[in-house]
Amino acid sequence: MDLLFWFIPLASFIALVTARGFFRQMMNYPMGSEKMQAIASSIRQGAMAYLRQQYKVVGFIFLLLAILLSYLCYGLNLQNRCLPFAFLSAGFFSSLAGFLGMRTATQASARTAFAASQSLNDALRIAFRSGAVMGLVVVGLGLLDYSLWFFLLHCFLDANSQQQKLLAVTSTMLTFGIGTSLQALFARVGGGIFTKAADVGADLVGKMEVNIPEDDPRNPAAIADNVGDNVGDVAGMGADLYESFYGSILAATALGAAAFYSYDAAIQVKATLLPALIGALGSLLSIGGIFSVRTRENADMCGLLRSLNRGIRLTAILIFALSFVLLYFLQIPNYLGLWGAIVVGLITGEVIGKSSEYYTSQAYRPTRCIAQQASTSAATGVISGIGIGMISTVIPVTAIVIGTALAFGFASQFNPKEIALGLFGISIAAVGMLSTLGITLATDAYGPIADNAGGNAEMSQLSPEVRRRTDALDALGNTTAATGKGFAIGSAALTALALMASYVEGIRVHLIQSGHHLLSCGHHLVPTAQATLSDFMQLYDVQLMNPHVLLGLFVGSMMAFLFCGLTINAVGRAAASIVNEVRRQFREIAGILEGKSPPDYASCVTISTRAAQKEMIIPSLSAVLVPIIMGYVFGVPGVLGLLSGALSTGFVLAIFMANSGGAWDNAKKYIEEGAYGGKGSPAHKSAIIGDTIGDPFKDTSGPSLNILIKLMSMIAIVSVGLSIGRVCLK
Amino acid sequence: MDLLFWFIPLASFIALVTARGFFRQMMNYPMGSEKMQAIASSIRQGAMAYLRQQYKVVGFIFLLLAILLSYLCYGLNLQNRCLPFAFLSAGFFSSLAGFLGMRTATQASARTAFAASQSLNDALRIAFRSGAVMGLVVVGLGLLDYSLWFFLLHCFLDANSQQQKLLAVTSTMLTFGIGTSLQALFARVGGGIFTKAADVGADLVGKMEVNIPEDDPRNPAAIADNVGDNVGDVAGMGADLYESFYGSILAATALGAAAFYSYDAAIQVKATLLPALIGALGSLLSIGGIFSVRTRENADMCGLLRSLNRGIRLTAILIFALSFVLLYFLQIPNYLGLWGAIVVGLITGEVIGKSSEYYTSQAYRPTRCIAQQASTSAATGVISGIGIGMISTVIPVTAIVIGTALAFGFASQFNPKEIALGLFGISIAAVGMLSTLGITLATDAYGPIADNAGGNAEMSQLSPEVRRRTDALDALGNTTAATGKGFAIGSAALTALALMASYVEGIRVHLIQSGHHLLSCGHHLVPTAQATLSDFMQLYDVQLMNPHVLLGLFVGSMMAFLFCGLTINAVGRAAASIVNEVRRQFREIAGILEGKSPPDYASCVTISTRAAQKEMIIPSLSAVLVPIIMGYVFGVPGVLGLLSGALSTGFVLAIFMANSGGAWDNAKKYIEEGAYGGKGSPAHKSAIIGDTIGDPFKDTSGPSLNILIKLMSMIAIVSVGLSIGRVCLK
Repeated sequence: MDLLFWFIPLASFIALVTARGFFRQMMNYPMGSEKMQAIASSIRQGAMAYLRQQYKVVGFIFLLLAILLSYLCYGLNLQNRCLPFAFLSAGFFSSLAGFLGMRTATQASARTAFAASQSLNDALRIAFRSGAVMGLVVVGLGLLDYSLWFFLLHCFLDANSQQQKLLAVTSTMLTFGIGTSLQALFARVGGGIFTKAADVGADLVGKMEVNIPEDDPRNPAAIADNVGDNVGDVAGMGADLYESFYGSILAATALGAAAFYSYDAAIQVKATLLPALIGALGSLLSIGGIFSVRTRENADMCGLLRSLNRGIRLTAILIFALSFVLLYFLQIPNYLGLWGAIVVGLITGEVIGKSSEYYTSQAYRPTRCIAQQASTSAATGVISGIGIGMISTVIPVTAIVIGTALAFGFASQFNPKEIALGLFGISIAAVGMLSTLGITLATDAYGPIADNAGGNAEMSQLSPEVRRRTDALDALGNTTAATGKGFAIGSAALTALALMASYVEGIRVHLIQSGHHLLSCGHHLVPTAQATLSDFMQLYDVQLMNPHVLLGLFVGSMMAFLFCGLTINAVGRAAASIVNEVRRQFREIAGILEGKSPPDYASCVTISTRAAQKEMIIPSLSAVLVPIIMGYVFGVPGVLGLLSGALSTGFVLAIFMANSGGAWDNAKKYIEEGAYGGKGSPAHKSAIIGDTIGDPFKDTSGPSLNILIKLMSMIAIVSVGLSIGRVCLK
Repeated sequence: MDLLFWFIPLASFIALVTARGFFRQMMNYPMGSEKMQAIASSIRQGAMAYLRQQYKVVGFIFLLLAILLSYLCYGLNLQNRCLPFAFLSAGFFSSLAGFLGMRTATQASARTAFAASQSLNDALRIAFRSGAVMGLVVVGLGLLDYSLWFFLLHCFLDANSQQQKLLAVTSTMLTFGIGTSLQALFARVGGGIFTKAADVGADLVGKMEVNIPEDDPRNPAAIADNVGDNVGDVAGMGADLYESFYGSILAATALGAAAFYSYDAAIQVKATLLPALIGALGSLLSIGGIFSVRTRENADMCGLLRSLNRGIRLTAILIFALSFVLLYFLQIPNYLGLWGAIVVGLITGEVIGKSSEYYTSQAYRPTRCIAQQASTSAATGVISGIGIGMISTVIPVTAIVIGTALAFGFASQFNPKEIALGLFGISIAAVGMLSTLGITLATDAYGPIADNAGGNAEMSQLSPEVRRRTDALDALGNTTAATGKGFAIGSAALTALALMASYVEGIRVHLIQSGHHLLSCGHHLVPTAQATLSDFMQLYDVQLMNPHVLLGLFVGSMMAFLFCGLTINAVGRAAASIVNEVRRQFREIAGILEGKSPPDYASCVTISTRAAQKEMIIPSLSAVLVPIIMGYVFGVPGVLGLLSGALSTGFVLAIFMANSGGAWDNAKKYIEEGAYGGKGSPAHKSAIIGDTIGDPFKDTSGPSLNILIKLMSMIAIVSVGLSIGRVCLK
């Protein structure tokens, strides 16, 4: 085992220990009054109850699938027999990351509220460091899982040569991603349905009908709403970004081993470890960035944002510099090109994030334009949000197009024959984009903590000054959340491209295993082991005039819409049940609105939990089944068509939904700050309708799409055997 | 010239003469009271003023482009020098179809209102036969333009052989489609913005704020709203379907000449004429179908629908039978397979139409479900409409996927090597789908006539019974319009596939013209004249792992969203100006609401006209420029990626938008019929918000998408020279 390797578990260890330190530090902070503790405790109980139920359902599905996989892999070689265990371990680590993040968040919210009653700086530090626990747990566990399996497989796998061994190890590990993706999809979809059903339900009756503010303790859905922030925006997002981080490293690792297969063994191992090393380096530098975040007491929004941005920028600059040093000392061929790919990834992520900020922040024209249209009527406000969301796809798509072309070009030294190296470059760009995850996720995860702290302050009737401080933190969280979503979807696009290449590599492995050592590509024969990606494309006729490819494209585009439609409808249905329940309680329990008798919070939590569990099954199942069926019916061209259709449509659709949703949310906030009549004006009522429509857009369907496209690719890779049989081979 | 050919101008002549007969018949019908005539006259004037303005702008753009084309084609061979003239003539015929249809519609509405005061049967006959004028004018002019240019080019072109001549004639004619597509895009986008801005503006203030019914003469936007029905739903739709009909025939003709190039000259000419012959046959049979539509006096909605459906079904069955006879006597090889493709087209169109009906008619669960969710709140109603619209894409995509696979399979006799024959089959399926256009368009175009008749009845205060009758006709029109949109988008998908193939054929022609008689495909050389589509794909490396293809896909998907975003925003902005104008009039002109002083109708018409003209330029321009830039930068792989991305995403997006919009509209109607509290209830107000949001979805952006994807393909075909230069050739 190369000495370099040990840097990865070491970074994982440091990240996890630091996270533990932050957690302890937060736990030592006082929790406030008894009322605050009681509220926090009921939110924690609701969230844990949800997670228990969720993990029960998901655990059952995972066990079923693991048994199925064991059955399918029985009698195969060792690396395939690992799949069921690795599948379970991937799911386990992913849910552990979500669980730990949520445990921290539920403990932190009351403490943040209490800290806000002391000083803004205290509140920021508590909330942000608690968010950092999540960030560091995600990268730490991701690197831990990686190290564990890499070490195990490397020790126990037999192969003819070091090169073949690495190929086998990495292609096996790639399939483990299926566990992470599936778990992430369940967490995102289930959590997303829960949180938005509760949020929409609480708002519709609370704000629109009985005119009580957000998080008012008289609202029966108030606790469910706060639970939702934790299970959706913390646990769901944690699993989602765990998947992005881990998945991008796995894909890049597999492509690295394949691209440098014909090189010297020492070089191949360096290229193979490179993605995880970048991730490890990024985690360590993120810790530094996190420590650098602090703010002056009398800081305003801008000061806060500057403070956070300073931390992130510091991390990015250090990665920029130190990744060059790393590559220089590794002495991989064309290390400058690979460094270029990392930089392209960092910049592309930044551009996508900034574009999200521009289109969703009330500081800029688009969101203000939505607010203005909302002042005409609810319908024009919604129309304008949809229009602007659609237009907002232009910059991210352009950024991804240019970024991909550059990453491909740099890594392949602009030689179009070097497709494998170019694709490795694309996957390295994805890793580069996510290398700052430790700190960006911290700025992302602290948003719901601040949101919950505000809820706690409201429900325990702290002074308005406290609420003002938590609101400032929360508003900031909205902007950083939009940026975080940009990273998630941007890296998903790059990783999905890499996974498509891995699928083709999977075909090679499968063909060699089934004895096809020669391929008939066009008019000549090629040894399978040396066939290029283009050869495989020609073998299976994966070109755009092949009707199977085009049909795959159609189905892929449709899958993105179908998936969104199913999840949006799920939120709509669940929200309607919450609305009816809240109305029922106002009607039947006397004295709620006067604050004389407490509402039944638990019933709303139960309704959301049940709805989320029930509604997450069908969308997730369709993501698993469609690639398998497509492969069986239309073969390799159908599968690649499907994946590219889902990728291109899903990417654009995800950005549209995230940005429309974010813009409506902030257009509402802009009006609440006093524009167009302020709170309670007709414009405000219109904006609330837009915000409510945007809720499932930005927090359920949109963010699930990036998992969907990767999960479908993973499923295609695992079930590659089903798709390759339908062509004549030598 | 083959004797067969003359059947095409003959059918065109019969269709146009019949249309003239229907027009005369309608004009002889009395027009009602003076007030009715005055209202009809001001709508007619508004509509004509809009069309004059529109044609001025479009004419200017067309002249500019024609000069540009002349310059580009100067010094080229004869067929290319025709392009500027053919471009103008195509635009001319397309606008003529729109103009004649609108002239008929504006004359027919008052007469239909008067007829409705006599009997339902009279009203149906007047409205439907006036709609039939449009249907017959569209197919008649389409066939006329086709015959004219086919005849001219056939007479004046020189070629080495009959086969080469047909190839040159048809590939030249294909590029004429660019005029039709561009004109259709302007008509759809401009008309769509006008009609929806006026509609949304009128509803928002009228229904939501001052509580006056639709088409109330006190509403300053009432006339603009009715003008909009004519310029958007009649003239816009006419140009749109003219483009579908003419474009599908041109594409199939070009592919037929190419696919049968190596056959006997007599067979090739039959295959080449086949698409137009099917279109001609369909027109004649449509006339029969139109004559068969009549209803009993005491008929209800179901009776009316049954009567229309009987006419359409009769036409379809006759086409089914007689196209077999036609093919049998033509004795083209594999005539059974080609007949299969026609039948597949007919059935696929029917399935897509029925699916639209299911998802948008209040007789079925989805729309009722939206109405139920609207009764909870506006936001849940909108969420549910979006969700259901997204899910509604599954059946059409599945139908297109199966239909394409079958049409390809039948025509190529399931031989995957016969890509050219298979693609011809796909294009024939598109022609088959549109062969019933004469009558389906009649059922489509009579909707706005009935709508306007209702408006006239309301404004001239006829008895409620009259309005009840026109409402019945109008409601029916909504359902048939949804079906018509299904046909337009379904045939667009098939035609766009065929156009992509034509683009590749264009590469061949261009390569031969520039002296590349041998292509180096992979490891062997192929004569350019005999290269298959697969050879070209290999030459340009158009496979899914080529980053240029993938980047093209991303940009294509983005284009569909960008285009929708731009047009939706245009409607939103224009509607907001109308709202402000209407509010201003209510505020400043005393006595409007009491009916004492008349509002200033003309100002709303002017605002809509200006907005439409201004806002249609940028979306249309982007559709023209992006394929050219893409070809220049990323070459053939980029262009084909772009076209497939725009096609797959655009198709799904168009269906989503059309169905969401239709479903919201009918959910509102369902509530108006008494469900969930009926008119004026909170559910009704919520449903109106949904309906308003859906207006630009279903009548502006959605239907423009099918033109967008074809126009981009046409532009790619015309500018093929820019994209092919970037590869090494022998």
